[in-house]
Amino acid sequence: MKAKESALQEKKGVSQPKATNKTSAERIKLNRAKNYSVEEYVSKILKGNVTFLSKAITLVESTNNKHQQKANEILEQCLPYANKSVRIGITGVPGVGKSTFIEAFGTYLTAQKNKVAVLAVDPSSTIYKGSILGDKTRMEALVNDKNAFIRPSPSGSSLGGVAKKTRETIILCEAAGFDTIIIETVGVGQSETVVNSMVDFFLLLKIAGAGDELQGIKRGIIEMADAIVIHKADGENIENAKIAKNAFQKALQLYPTKKSNWKPKVTVASALYNSGILEIHHMINEYLKITKENNYFNEKRNEQNKYWLLATIEQALKDNFYNRANIKKALSEEIIRLEKGKTTPFNAAKRILES
Amino acid sequence: MKAKESALQEKKGVSQPKATNKTSAERIKLNRAKNYSVEEYVSKILKGNVTFLSKAITLVESTNNKHQQKANEILEQCLPYANKSVRIGITGVPGVGKSTFIEAFGTYLTAQKNKVAVLAVDPSSTIYKGSILGDKTRMEALVNDKNAFIRPSPSGSSLGGVAKKTRETIILCEAAGFDTIIIETVGVGQSETVVNSMVDFFLLLKIAGAGDELQGIKRGIIEMADAIVIHKADGENIENAKIAKNAFQKALQLYPTKKSNWKPKVTVASALYNSGILEIHHMINEYLKITKENNYFNEKRNEQNKYWLLATIEQALKDNFYNRANIKKALSEEIIRLEKGKTTPFNAAKRILES
Repeated sequence: MKAKESALQEKKGVSQPKATNKTSAERIKLNRAKNYSVEEYVSKILKGNVTFLSKAITLVESTNNKHQQKANEILEQCLPYANKSVRIGITGVPGVGKSTFIEAFGTYLTAQKNKVAVLAVDPSSTIYKGSILGDKTRMEALVNDKNAFIRPSPSGSSLGGVAKKTRETIILCEAAGFDTIIIETVGVGQSETVVNSMVDFFLLLKIAGAGDELQGIKRGIIEMADAIVIHKADGENIENAKIAKNAFQKALQLYPTKKSNWKPKVTVASALYNSGILEIHHMINEYLKITKENNYFNEKRNEQNKYWLLATIEQALKDNFYNRANIKKALSEEIIRLEKGKTTPFNAAKRILES
Repeated sequence: MKAKESALQEKKGVSQPKATNKTSAERIKLNRAKNYSVEEYVSKILKGNVTFLSKAITLVESTNNKHQQKANEILEQCLPYANKSVRIGITGVPGVGKSTFIEAFGTYLTAQKNKVAVLAVDPSSTIYKGSILGDKTRMEALVNDKNAFIRPSPSGSSLGGVAKKTRETIILCEAAGFDTIIIETVGVGQSETVVNSMVDFFLLLKIAGAGDELQGIKRGIIEMADAIVIHKADGENIENAKIAKNAFQKALQLYPTKKSNWKPKVTVASALYNSGILEIHHMINEYLKITKENNYFNEKRNEQNKYWLLATIEQALKDNFYNRANIKKALSEEIIRLEKGKTTPFNAAKRILES
């Protein structure tokens, strides 16, 4: 069991530091990594070398300036070879069976001669604990599949930071020849919006409940979804899954047509029985056909790039501003005045900007 | 007819410049306005003097720095007397009958001894043309009602700018004793989000269609609505209105419980026959009772103030940055590189921030 865990860790491009010396383990790994030139990295990645892919991702995830600079150079050189994959976002609340679904879906795809990379965006995780790809035992087949590459969510306290690393990792994976990128996220917080801004197709996993199928879904997620998959549709759940499917189909009709001209679909699936997987693959191919014909596919990717460009700039502007000591002081003072009804938000903002 | 139009214009606190000399007309009005001291303004406004209220709003809407400074002083002195109204947002696509609905609802409210101010947020309008409160003939009774005050949307090309002026106008109206503020907006673009961030209760007007009642509604609006009113429910439309009501009630059940603990309601109404108006008033009172008891009412207003504080600061940061000539140049260059796949959004952002 321990050997297997180690193998899984290797597969994920993460070395196995003991809990007591993770910093030194990381340092050693990064020191080793920086001995290779940018050119060596790029040529190995383009040949599909997963070890170098992992090392490059580690550079992307590093907070060290030199590593980041090297990562940037690798990224720019990999870019002409990227962008050729299908990027699929998968979300759903904990317990919906994301890992088992990705295991079944990913294994199906590699059997079809696809090369599949599974990444994650989970702002709460760190590399060493709590990653939503952490439960590797549910992805045993995929972990040992030479055409699959699994990488847990990068660590980071800010969603923007985690998202940046994941977006850059997508580029590296694509350059390494992975033609299907699956990005997993949990159905909480703002992470779906962020994942939606980096994928071509967004899939929401649900399980059938007792008539309250749509309850508890975060606002906006249904509107984002290109497909809703009622998962764990097996055994006694089959009937409930069908009811849920109908409820969601009706709900989806309530929304206006998407810019993609794609009408979101609802399907049922069971990873346990490998049912519904083929249909989902066909559906995604249909989506790609439609959106490549009407050019929405490219437009969306361009829009996503511009979104990330502006979001990065604006985040930096805000960080620079709000991190200044005098601004912090002025802001907290004005918020108190605001709560006491002694000023308007606009006058308060004016004073803060002038301070 | 012309005399009536003039009277309506007066009532709205807008003088009647000819299309050819609006600038000078505005200048004259503002020059006249600035002869009064801040104290005169405030004392007159607190006495409910509508002429001074109009003049103060004109200062709020002015782009002249001196006028803005005077407006800011008036606003800060009015603040302790503001905040005591109910602020109701009303939206719906053109043709849904917003003006006739507001006429009926407003007239009902003034008959109940309420003082009603009707404002608007319409980023596309100017004072002189295209305002969504432009069709005054549909609000004849309200325009001539001494307990009502109607002010068209302030002019402005940016939604943020228009919204700022409307928010400040709310404060002045409240200080002048208006206890019900109705804010109208069109159901297009981002204006509902902005109006939602300045009202206590958000009402969506709809008309019954041929089974596609929910089609064409902008994403997110249903989620924002505290009530949906199926309007023009009269004559042959009554049956369709009932069907639409059921469809919306089912749709609303699909959403999670709101932070307010209020379950959004669906009602039918006809301004033409004055039906359903009383029920809407009762519903809003019920909402106020619940949200004042659970303190959501105050929390929401505090949140709205903080939202506007931060939004104003961040807009200023962005404006300052993007308006610099070197940034404009760098940005357009990087966008071209991005579209050609020659850089990542993050590297592009880095170079722009360093330039």
